[in-house]
Amino acid sequence: VAPPALPEQLDQLADLLGRMCVQAAGNLRDASAGLLEGRLRLAEKLVDSTAMDGLRSGVEEVATDALLFHAPVAGDLRAVVSALHASDDLVRMGVLARHVAETALRRRPGTVPDEVRPAFSQMSRLGVDLALKAAEVVRTRNVLLAVELDADDEAMDALHARMFEVLMDRSWPHGVLAAVDVTLLARYYERFADHAVLVAGETVRAVTGRRPDEVATYLDTGS
Amino acid sequence: VAPPALPEQLDQLADLLGRMCVQAAGNLRDASAGLLEGRLRLAEKLVDSTAMDGLRSGVEEVATDALLFHAPVAGDLRAVVSALHASDDLVRMGVLARHVAETALRRRPGTVPDEVRPAFSQMSRLGVDLALKAAEVVRTRNVLLAVELDADDEAMDALHARMFEVLMDRSWPHGVLAAVDVTLLARYYERFADHAVLVAGETVRAVTGRRPDEVATYLDTGS
Repeated sequence: VAPPALPEQLDQLADLLGRMCVQAAGNLRDASAGLLEGRLRLAEKLVDSTAMDGLRSGVEEVATDALLFHAPVAGDLRAVVSALHASDDLVRMGVLARHVAETALRRRPGTVPDEVRPAFSQMSRLGVDLALKAAEVVRTRNVLLAVELDADDEAMDALHARMFEVLMDRSWPHGVLAAVDVTLLARYYERFADHAVLVAGETVRAVTGRRPDEVATYLDTGS
Repeated sequence: VAPPALPEQLDQLADLLGRMCVQAAGNLRDASAGLLEGRLRLAEKLVDSTAMDGLRSGVEEVATDALLFHAPVAGDLRAVVSALHASDDLVRMGVLARHVAETALRRRPGTVPDEVRPAFSQMSRLGVDLALKAAEVVRTRNVLLAVELDADDEAMDALHARMFEVLMDRSWPHGVLAAVDVTLLARYYERFADHAVLVAGETVRAVTGRRPDEVATYLDTGS
């Protein structure tokens, strides 16, 4: 069987990456429902899921075929290479969502003390949004939208910093065990968001041939 | 100027990746000296270093040229693709070492309480060893050595688990602030080791065309 034409393979890559983004978003949503609403069945299902690995294998296969059969150049080559990088980030997002689910399963529903519960809800919403925006960027190759993700990521960083202020407050009454859980959970959400930004950034690099921060500067100054 | 021949480019990639491994090892050693011996100048120098990013750009450039000018196939193509993946892991190892250095700089020398100090020394040694072994694997393409890294990584995981036992002990007398630092530091070391294993695993995939766990099983059973 002849391999598909290159444009078709690039569409396949965008589709697979988009599905990985949507899967990552769904995984974080389910993991958070496990953590914050005690919906442990959702968390359990997630821990056993191999959906992300399957999609990543698909990316590797299509990317390798594209390189083998079409020896792409310029923007097409960048699209293939950045798909490989982005799929690494997306697998990692899946692992981070799984860590949230595992924490929900390991501890009782009271793992997340009331003071930090709203912040975790917000972190979850932001993380899910970022992953869905990354899906949109990957599918539409919309560089302007990619730059927008940075603002969401800053909101995530602010929540992350605020969480540590709460922990560092001498009046934290929940003990070391809860502090350790909250520390790691906050980091999982924050890293999830960082990887979503990297996924979108890979598209920027593929489309423009420039680093995302260079493109952001260019758009900011309107020059 | 004509680009170098493909075998030369593959050697360049192995050399660049090897240097990234050695750099990551040195960064973790310096960060740990900052953290555990109060050698803050080492930690400061590390935070400002751009060495890893420079090496990674080199990998991207050589890999892209190899794909563009030689359209490699089979094992050669795998070597190029896995160099791209491995360089992502190595950059991440550099960031994790930097996080250790930043923690050393942010807190006073007493950040790491005495009970966990020997464990962190061991984690540092293991992390440095893993990065140096990864350098060896990348340079020699020695698949047997790659499998050996798993044992070191298990030792790291055991230290990581033991650290949490110490933290979880109700008699932990150092408060929440120190617990949060220790939690994150332990995670940085553990993630550093994981990425070193992934770097070696990329070489296994490139050389054998199989996943590292398949190769490990094959070698274990001697079949």
